[in-house]
Amino acid sequence: MYGEIIAIGDELVSGRVLNTTSGFAARRLFEAGYEISRMTVIGDDPTLIKECLVSALGRSKFVLITGGLGPTTDDITNEVVARTLGKRLVKNEIVMSQIKKWEKGSKSAHANSMRERMAMLPEGAEVLNPTGCAAGYLLMHRGVALFFLPGVPEQLREHVIERVLPKLRDLVRLGFEVRQKTFKVFGLSEVEINLLFENIESRHNNLKIGYYPNFPEVHVTVTVRGTDKESVDKQCRSACETVERLLGNHIVAIDPENIESVVGRLLIENQGILVVAESCTGGLLGKRITGVPGSSKWFDRGFITYSNRSKEELLGVSARTLEQYGAVSAETAIEMAQGARSVAGVDYSLSITGIAGPTGGTPDKPVGTVFIGLSTPDRTVSERFHFPGDRRRIRALAAETALDWLRRYLRYGSYVPGYRPS
Amino acid sequence: MYGEIIAIGDELVSGRVLNTTSGFAARRLFEAGYEISRMTVIGDDPTLIKECLVSALGRSKFVLITGGLGPTTDDITNEVVARTLGKRLVKNEIVMSQIKKWEKGSKSAHANSMRERMAMLPEGAEVLNPTGCAAGYLLMHRGVALFFLPGVPEQLREHVIERVLPKLRDLVRLGFEVRQKTFKVFGLSEVEINLLFENIESRHNNLKIGYYPNFPEVHVTVTVRGTDKESVDKQCRSACETVERLLGNHIVAIDPENIESVVGRLLIENQGILVVAESCTGGLLGKRITGVPGSSKWFDRGFITYSNRSKEELLGVSARTLEQYGAVSAETAIEMAQGARSVAGVDYSLSITGIAGPTGGTPDKPVGTVFIGLSTPDRTVSERFHFPGDRRRIRALAAETALDWLRRYLRYGSYVPGYRPS
Repeated sequence: MYGEIIAIGDELVSGRVLNTTSGFAARRLFEAGYEISRMTVIGDDPTLIKECLVSALGRSKFVLITGGLGPTTDDITNEVVARTLGKRLVKNEIVMSQIKKWEKGSKSAHANSMRERMAMLPEGAEVLNPTGCAAGYLLMHRGVALFFLPGVPEQLREHVIERVLPKLRDLVRLGFEVRQKTFKVFGLSEVEINLLFENIESRHNNLKIGYYPNFPEVHVTVTVRGTDKESVDKQCRSACETVERLLGNHIVAIDPENIESVVGRLLIENQGILVVAESCTGGLLGKRITGVPGSSKWFDRGFITYSNRSKEELLGVSARTLEQYGAVSAETAIEMAQGARSVAGVDYSLSITGIAGPTGGTPDKPVGTVFIGLSTPDRTVSERFHFPGDRRRIRALAAETALDWLRRYLRYGSYVPGYRPS
Repeated sequence: MYGEIIAIGDELVSGRVLNTTSGFAARRLFEAGYEISRMTVIGDDPTLIKECLVSALGRSKFVLITGGLGPTTDDITNEVVARTLGKRLVKNEIVMSQIKKWEKGSKSAHANSMRERMAMLPEGAEVLNPTGCAAGYLLMHRGVALFFLPGVPEQLREHVIERVLPKLRDLVRLGFEVRQKTFKVFGLSEVEINLLFENIESRHNNLKIGYYPNFPEVHVTVTVRGTDKESVDKQCRSACETVERLLGNHIVAIDPENIESVVGRLLIENQGILVVAESCTGGLLGKRITGVPGSSKWFDRGFITYSNRSKEELLGVSARTLEQYGAVSAETAIEMAQGARSVAGVDYSLSITGIAGPTGGTPDKPVGTVFIGLSTPDRTVSERFHFPGDRRRIRALAAETALDWLRRYLRYGSYVPGYRPS
C-alpha cells in the first residue's frame, strides 16, 4: 500500500530549514502499516509543484503534500493544485469562520485579506481540522487521497496522528491489524540494544523492532502485524514481555509517558516532594520537570546556582569545599543536594555541577565532567560522570542521568545510576 | 545553476532514520551559489533508483546520489548505476588497496569478500577520496556531474565540503555571487512581516526575502545574487539596511547570534549581572541563558519558585501579596523581581509567573495569563500578557518575551516590552 510525501518550501531546498516533517510522517505511516515509496522536496515553484503532483497521481494510492498553505505571497499550493486538477478555488466557510475569530485581534485590514487567501481551497476540499487555524484538507482525485497539510512541524505532527491516520484507515483498507508499543530507553546505545534483540525478529514473522535514537534516549518500537486480531494481541503482549525482560531497568518510560512524568508518578506514590540544585544545566532539569502538567504536586522549587557565591548563599555549600575541591566536585555536589533539601525542607533533591564546555576543562576535569548528587531521607550520594559531545549534549545527558537516577531509587530503592559513572 | 540530491535507503523512507544529509548538502551548495531544485528520498529499490537517475540526468547539471555504497547486500547503487548508464563494473585499484589495508585487521573472510564489492565501481568513476575507506566517486555522463557519496552523515559532510564543492567549482562555472543574511524577529507575525516587505522584492531583481517561522521567532533571510561582486555586496548592504529599518527593534538577533547571546553582550557592555526568578517557566529562562557559552560572566543565579512558600522564603514575596492578589499577579511579579535582585545583590532581574495550563485557569486569569517583571537599578515594572497555545508554547513565549524585554531596555533604555501586553 504505497504512498508518497511531497514537501514544498524554498527554505527546505536551500537547506536553511531541515525537513524533519517528511521523515516523521513516513515513520508514523510505516508503523501503521502504510509504506512510503518516495519523499520529494521542492521549492515554492508552480511548475515543479504541478509536475510532482501529476507524477504522484499516476503511481500512488495516497499523497501527503506539506507546506505552502500559509497566508503569505509565497504560499501558492492551493492555487497550483486547483489549476493542475482543473478545480475552482472556493471560499471554505469553516476555515473562514476560524479566520474571523482570529481577525478580531488584528487591526490591519490588509493582513486580514491576506489571511482570507488561506480560506480559498480547491473545490471538494474536506477540511481536516474544523476548529484549528492551519487548514489541512483532504482532496480525493481519481481514487487517490491527496492530503494537503501545514509544513510547520508541530501542526504537521498533530495532523498526521490525529487526522491523516484515521482518515487513511477509512479510505485505504489494509486488511490487517497492527499493534505497537514504544519503550523509552536510557543508558544503552543503539548498537547494544540491537545486539540484545538480534534473534528475536527472525523468530517471529510478523514482528518488527525499530530503534529510533531520540537523544539522549533510544526509543524501541515493537510492531506486530497480522490478519487475526486475537493472535496479533497475543503476539504483541509476548514480544513486549521479552523486550521488557531484555531491557530491564533501562526502560525509563513507556509511551505516552516520559521519564519526567514517571518520576512524578513515583514521587506521588511515595508522597515525596522534590527540589533541584543546578549549576551547569542552568535550569534544564527544572524546565523538564515543570514541563509535566501538575508537577506542582511533587516539585517545590529549584536553585540555579551558577556562581560560587550563589552556591554558598542559597545552598550553604562551604567556602572551604569550593576552594579545596572546586565547584565541580563530588563534595560540592553532595553539599548542593543536602543544602537544597534542607533549605526547602523536603524529602528528595538532585544536584548537578559540571563543565559543559566548550571551555573551562582541565586535564583533571575535562569538558564533559559532571558530578550529580542525589539526596533522600536516608542518604546523600554523588557520582562522577564523563558525558561526551558538545555543550548541548552534555547538559541533556546530565539532566537525563539525574532524572533516571531518582527514578531508579524510587522504583528499585537502588543508589546505582543508570548511566555508567566515570 | 540547478542540481538535485537523491538519497537512497530503506531506513530513510520508513522514517527510521531522519534524512539530515540532503539538507546539509543543499545548504552548503546553496551558500556556495549552487541551487538544489529537488531532493528525493527512495528505498533500496533498483527500479526506483534507475527511474530517479534517468529523470535527474534529463534536467540537472549535477546530481548528488547518497547511500547504498556500503558492503552489505542491500547496497546496490553501483550495480544499478552501471546497468542504467550502460557501463561495466570495474574493480577500482585505489579503493581495493584501501580495503586491503582494512582487511589486515579483520578475521572474517566473508566480511572481506563483502567489502570487495565496494571496490566494483562503474567504468570511468573518479574516486574522490583516494586515502579514505568510504568510496565516494564522480562520474561524468553526457555533461552531467554525478557524485556518488556515502550516506553516513559525517562521511557525507566531509565529502561535500572537501571534495564535492571544489570539484563543482572546476566543473560548473557559476558566474555569479551570492550574499545572505538572516534576521531573527520576535513580536511580529509572519503576515505582518510579509506586509512590510511586499514591494521590496519586486523592486529588486536579484533580491529574495524568505520568511521562516522558528517558534517563537520568525527568521527573515535576505539573499542577493548577481554577476558583479561589488554590486552584489552593495545591493545586499542596501537591502539589509531597508530590512533593518522596517523591522526595527523587532530584530532580536542577527544570525549567528541569538537573543540570549545578544542579551549577554549588552549586559557585558553595561557591566551588569542578571538573575532570574521563574514560576511557570520552571527553569526554561535559566536554561536558555546558560545555553550561551561563557554566560557565567553575566548570569549569577536563578530561582525556580514553583510553590508559594518558595516565593516567600527565597524571594521575600509577602504572604499578604500572595493572598490578596494571588501568585499570578502584577504585584507578585514585581516582588519576585525585586526580591531576586536584592537577594543576589545584582543589577538586573527578570521574573515570570503565570498559568501555563492545561488546568489552573479562571475566568479572570485564563490559561496563558502570564505576568513578567523587569527590575533595573532605576525601576521595577511588570506587565500582564496573554499568550496563546498549549503549555509548551505559553512557556516558550513567556521566556522569549522576558529576554526581549531586557534586551529592549539595555539597547534602547525602554520599559516597553516587544510582545503586546494584554
